[in-house]
Amino acid sequence: MAQPQADAAEADKPALGVGMVGYAFMGAAHSQGWRTVGRVFDLPRRPVLAAICGRDPGAVRAAADRHGWAAAETDWRALLERDDVDLVDICTPGDSHAEIALAALAAGKHVLCEKPLANTVEEAEAMTAAAEEAARRGQLAMVGFNYRRLPATALARSMVAEGRLGTLRHVRVTYLQDWLVDPEFPLTWRLRKEAAGSGALGDLGAHIVDLAQYLAGEPLAGVSALTETFVRERPLPGGPTSGLTATATAGAGQVTVDDAAVFTGRFTSGALASFEATRYATGRKNALRIELNGERGSLAFDLERLNELAYHDGTEPGTHAGFRRILVTEPDHPYLDAWWPPGHGLGYEHSFVHQARDLVLAIAQGSRPRPSFADGLQVQRVLAAVEESAEKNSAYTPIAVSSISV
Amino acid sequence: MAQPQADAAEADKPALGVGMVGYAFMGAAHSQGWRTVGRVFDLPRRPVLAAICGRDPGAVRAAADRHGWAAAETDWRALLERDDVDLVDICTPGDSHAEIALAALAAGKHVLCEKPLANTVEEAEAMTAAAEEAARRGQLAMVGFNYRRLPATALARSMVAEGRLGTLRHVRVTYLQDWLVDPEFPLTWRLRKEAAGSGALGDLGAHIVDLAQYLAGEPLAGVSALTETFVRERPLPGGPTSGLTATATAGAGQVTVDDAAVFTGRFTSGALASFEATRYATGRKNALRIELNGERGSLAFDLERLNELAYHDGTEPGTHAGFRRILVTEPDHPYLDAWWPPGHGLGYEHSFVHQARDLVLAIAQGSRPRPSFADGLQVQRVLAAVEESAEKNSAYTPIAVSSISV
Amino acid sequence: MAQPQADAAEADKPALGVGMVGYAFMGAAHSQGWRTVGRVFDLPRRPVLAAICGRDPGAVRAAADRHGWAAAETDWRALLERDDVDLVDICTPGDSHAEIALAALAAGKHVLCEKPLANTVEEAEAMTAAAEEAARRGQLAMVGFNYRRLPATALARSMVAEGRLGTLRHVRVTYLQDWLVDPEFPLTWRLRKEAAGSGALGDLGAHIVDLAQYLAGEPLAGVSALTETFVRERPLPGGPTSGLTATATAGAGQVTVDDAAVFTGRFTSGALASFEATRYATGRKNALRIELNGERGSLAFDLERLNELAYHDGTEPGTHAGFRRILVTEPDHPYLDAWWPPGHGLGYEHSFVHQARDLVLAIAQGSRPRPSFADGLQVQRVLAAVEESAEKNSAYTPIAVSSISV
Amino acid sequence: MAQPQADAAEADKPALGVGMVGYAFMGAAHSQGWRTVGRVFDLPRRPVLAAICGRDPGAVRAAADRHGWAAAETDWRALLERDDVDLVDICTPGDSHAEIALAALAAGKHVLCEKPLANTVEEAEAMTAAAEEAARRGQLAMVGFNYRRLPATALARSMVAEGRLGTLRHVRVTYLQDWLVDPEFPLTWRLRKEAAGSGALGDLGAHIVDLAQYLAGEPLAGVSALTETFVRERPLPGGPTSGLTATATAGAGQVTVDDAAVFTGRFTSGALASFEATRYATGRKNALRIELNGERGSLAFDLERLNELAYHDGTEPGTHAGFRRILVTEPDHPYLDAWWPPGHGLGYEHSFVHQARDLVLAIAQGSRPRPSFADGLQVQRVLAAVEESAEKNSAYTPIAVSSISV
Repeated sequence: MAQPQADAAEADKPALGVGMVGYAFMGAAHSQGWRTVGRVFDLPRRPVLAAICGRDPGAVRAAADRHGWAAAETDWRALLERDDVDLVDICTPGDSHAEIALAALAAGKHVLCEKPLANTVEEAEAMTAAAEEAARRGQLAMVGFNYRRLPATALARSMVAEGRLGTLRHVRVTYLQDWLVDPEFPLTWRLRKEAAGSGALGDLGAHIVDLAQYLAGEPLAGVSALTETFVRERPLPGGPTSGLTATATAGAGQVTVDDAAVFTGRFTSGALASFEATRYATGRKNALRIELNGERGSLAFDLERLNELAYHDGTEPGTHAGFRRILVTEPDHPYLDAWWPPGHGLGYEHSFVHQARDLVLAIAQGSRPRPSFADGLQVQRVLAAVEESAEKNSAYTPIAVSSISV
Repeated sequence: MAQPQADAAEADKPALGVGMVGYAFMGAAHSQGWRTVGRVFDLPRRPVLAAICGRDPGAVRAAADRHGWAAAETDWRALLERDDVDLVDICTPGDSHAEIALAALAAGKHVLCEKPLANTVEEAEAMTAAAEEAARRGQLAMVGFNYRRLPATALARSMVAEGRLGTLRHVRVTYLQDWLVDPEFPLTWRLRKEAAGSGALGDLGAHIVDLAQYLAGEPLAGVSALTETFVRERPLPGGPTSGLTATATAGAGQVTVDDAAVFTGRFTSGALASFEATRYATGRKNALRIELNGERGSLAFDLERLNELAYHDGTEPGTHAGFRRILVTEPDHPYLDAWWPPGHGLGYEHSFVHQARDLVLAIAQGSRPRPSFADGLQVQRVLAAVEESAEKNSAYTPIAVSSISV
Repeated sequence: MAQPQADAAEADKPALGVGMVGYAFMGAAHSQGWRTVGRVFDLPRRPVLAAICGRDPGAVRAAADRHGWAAAETDWRALLERDDVDLVDICTPGDSHAEIALAALAAGKHVLCEKPLANTVEEAEAMTAAAEEAARRGQLAMVGFNYRRLPATALARSMVAEGRLGTLRHVRVTYLQDWLVDPEFPLTWRLRKEAAGSGALGDLGAHIVDLAQYLAGEPLAGVSALTETFVRERPLPGGPTSGLTATATAGAGQVTVDDAAVFTGRFTSGALASFEATRYATGRKNALRIELNGERGSLAFDLERLNELAYHDGTEPGTHAGFRRILVTEPDHPYLDAWWPPGHGLGYEHSFVHQARDLVLAIAQGSRPRPSFADGLQVQRVLAAVEESAEKNSAYTPIAVSSISV
Repeated sequence: MAQPQADAAEADKPALGVGMVGYAFMGAAHSQGWRTVGRVFDLPRRPVLAAICGRDPGAVRAAADRHGWAAAETDWRALLERDDVDLVDICTPGDSHAEIALAALAAGKHVLCEKPLANTVEEAEAMTAAAEEAARRGQLAMVGFNYRRLPATALARSMVAEGRLGTLRHVRVTYLQDWLVDPEFPLTWRLRKEAAGSGALGDLGAHIVDLAQYLAGEPLAGVSALTETFVRERPLPGGPTSGLTATATAGAGQVTVDDAAVFTGRFTSGALASFEATRYATGRKNALRIELNGERGSLAFDLERLNELAYHDGTEPGTHAGFRRILVTEPDHPYLDAWWPPGHGLGYEHSFVHQARDLVLAIAQGSRPRPSFADGLQVQRVLAAVEESAEKNSAYTPIAVSSISV
């Protein structure tokens, strides 16, 4: 663990008050990130868990207690009015992202918004415009594509940026889960279009579209897609949900989102891409797998083994070449100087610690954090093109080209 | 190694004379199959390597010598007239398959034809019709999708047939090679449309389309595709080629086939599929990977580890469930009773030994061998739909549904 | 993340004051555990990071600040006198364990002591006797074999306890690191017998001996050993050390501990064991690997992939049997109900969170925590037998049989 | 497949008549080697399967028929008198190796003898002396450690010889099978000391001792060992055996060999070694695994994935370093120019083809084939030291140092 810089005692650092909206799965993960980041990284500002917000007074109070937030609010508008909140962290379902984020920026706060940025391109455009305007005032906005923040993916990005892959030829990505295989799994909010926007596409597809563009360092130019809803009616949920688990009750309702999406595409450089997002891949629990093949080398990553990156150096003599398994736990790997000795791996939640670190650093330095709302908008445009293509007989659907920040 | 049945001395078995056309990579592989099959399996007929055919008299003589063929011919029509040839094994490039196969069937021979069955659907239809007619006369025809003949893929098929996957949800398949990454690799016949029909699509795509339909036990209903030629001009080849290697010479020519194809599709049951065939996946040498996810279980296979099959039993309690690595080398695994003790793996070429075994058994029993020419035609239709979709802006392109034999 | 029980607000829970001695690698890891445990698990007592102790006033103050400890002490005897300290957590090198632990127990504190329990069997015996006496007064003691606390190892233990392996035949264990391969790595305290007791043997070997006995559920009966010091002189260290890294300075000194130890042994049941501990396994960063083979099944674990457990069910038909990769991230896996959805893996440090959880629960319930000081003593006896055997020409050296707690 | 050299038609090459004694598992494997080698490799002499020998007239006749041997003999002395036999290939159990090999050398034949070379050091010494004398007359002798002949192990040897590992620190080797886990498996000859010499030690241990010394490029200097017989009584066998399988019948007998052996040792350079040979590792079918760690790099191999070699280059910057998986199927890998394109793997039996190739080349060139009988003797001495150590309370037992040929 890196030693603190002698010149900055923790108590002397200016506080950065965080207010979080939502306290389910993402709320717990973000809380762990905010609680831990200042204990591990030596940051110029000291994150303070100022207040958490949720509609149910008892539940939000318990969540504040559990996760270490100083105060609890039941109205997010009240949270925005608090002076001790400098940054609003939005962990709600996608249908409320735009409203809260726009209000938070209007209230002069920095914003961290969970992915997908919004449920529609229009919302995302409004949010991006507002973030752009706010940035001129010094308020910063970031979208929560946390998988950019793993040491292995960050290392992959730097290796691509160094030119180790050369001209890119192929990107293939899957995000496979299996928690909907059972047709009796209940109809939670993630299966309703009005709350979730889309299904596997928005939840898992948003992650892999962002990660693919981030690692490739270029945006997608167009896509051709098929989507499917395998199980169209499910029992209604009853009782508490936790993480991805839930309990069924009497009655049934319609699934109004996709269960799976498969799509192909082209990057602006001409590289071919294939994507698959599904919650029906029996036995695959969190298999976000991405492989990039370039003229000079290849990289491969699997979220189920998140401390590893596979790398093939195509410039080596074939006699001794092969995909090597880099254990991304060395002190000079991204984020690793603050953690444990080589081989002592990190977990999923560390991506949220790192996300918090990068955002705090950006705020302290006044630089634009990445991924930006514009990056979130670009992902939204890809998802919209996927849906459009799927509706139009899989016709190849171009995406308005924008730059992405990596 | 299984002992011979006491009642059938090899010498007493009726011979089955084989005549092979072509002696490059596939010719060598088929020769090894024919030479070995009667030494390992106890067959009702004794395969005899009667004659091999090629245009260059010296080269074909040397090949006969090397591979153990009793005679050499320089005109395939002469091969078809030989009385000691009962079965014609066609190992030439795809542009000559139809002509030779039709003539061989007309000459009263059984036929084994390398994949892809033909370079066009029309040729494949004619061949299938001829095979159908010949079958009524007792002449049998088989197409050489040898990857059905690996113990692991054959085991996978039987597990699907037993219902271990339940309703199929996803099939994802890649066939990744990298021998064209170098832009100086010369323009061999495999890169010219007139000889090869198509590029990665016909060569690699044909294998994975057949294998996917075989394992799924059902045909594809439609596809949406993107194809690409990354390097459009290459140096002309000079000197001998061997396997997939070749030497460049002065001058350059146009690549007239695809370098890579990515496509999605639907099986007739509604399962989603994704396919990728490429020769530009740096570091991937022969990565034919297929995974099937069903409501009750999943299977995964990788040709680079061909003695293994991964299986997830979705009906097990989650506490102890996981993808298991079945080492497909047990005596009760397909083809394995004739080979070595558990854990003593087989190689690529064994698929040709097994193909020969299955064809000899079918001929001896008078049953239709699988995969049939009709199966080859079905694959051809899928490939044609891929090309059509790629030309029509990736529009989803239905495939005339036919049955497949598994 | 599991919701808090409605009936126990955090603030209402009785505090459990923790005082920690040492703040290097282990101190940082334990701090993360103590900070996090009450936020993730619903515990009957609320751990409070009361005070941290170290000799350098500035450094210990900075560490308190960084890691979130309320107070800092420079004399561990002062720490023991604090009323707000209920539990003393000893994270110093092994040569001070006995003195501090004995004093802490005498002072009426609960004790958590890092492994190895002590540098000699005699110290460990005294500590075990004191712990036994203290337990009668309600003070509890635990030794920090944190690798028992990973979900995968805890699952393995429960599977062995269920009889899934049957009669045990083989246990093979390695703990491979490579941070001493470079002969210029400096002579830190871990390479000096007076501070560390032994080298790879006490550091890595202690872990694998405990883990092997824990998973097997039985003690070792005897061992035969070879040890080696490959590099006998190293530069003196200068400047700060962090984790396992350090900087060299002028001058050189003798390495007085082993660089590696290989030993074989017998468990009391008659199962054969092999062990290897080394810091010279180039490319292996933290490869604690253990495999157990029993008459009915086998288990295998690798710390470099700590979210996975491999299991072979030997009672299954061979046709479909194979080592399965259990992703130990399901809600019903040990410790996992408090964490993330399936497939969202944990890291190294979570073992310390779980260790803290189990210790707090034991204290709250008044039950003996495991592993006990007696377990630490048993490990010490094995290590002593290893050293004795290595000195006596590898002669098989029996170990006084004691019971172990699992 | 490499084309034949134009200047040497197969028919014009001088024949090399092979006479084989034994036709069980090893006989079948060697037959496949002899049948295939001249078809794949361009050799200066043409191997002819002249005669096979076994005691049961009907069975040996059937084996000749099946495996393609021109003649059958029932007395190995008669085989030695045949003029068409230049080389005697001994595939019998170890108790007859010495007698047959000595007689064959006396009869002026070249000799290939299966491993272990003999059942005792004394026999092996006599054989080595006879081989040395015969070599002066131009008769050559080789012992069948076929695992030196896999492309991956041969590549590993060349990488060690190039200095890629630097000073060797560790060698760890296991050979794990599980076909004796079932206590009802019958008492075949492999479980009787008088026929097999020893159990897992001589069968599996001989392989790993030879392979370890071959890859390390140096002999073992001493060992410390434990051996065990877990199941001491087994049913008598009845009916035919095949490969490693057999059928039980009424009655029972004593197992007089070891079931498993674990031993540690030192190489002459000071590197530490650990070995384990067992037939009780449930779920491990043929897990011959070897890893070598040197100051500059590491290599790892697993026979269950025999087309792969893992290599860590310790001289690379840690940022991008990792164990790489070399797919040993490139044309410039050992033996591979004669086989298939990259990624098209070989199997177990290819080791026998390669062994035949190397022996034919050595005979044609008049050079000493490797591994020599002296190498077989060195392995025998290690096995004897293992047995001696196991009897003497695991005392470290030195081995008379001899050179080995690699």
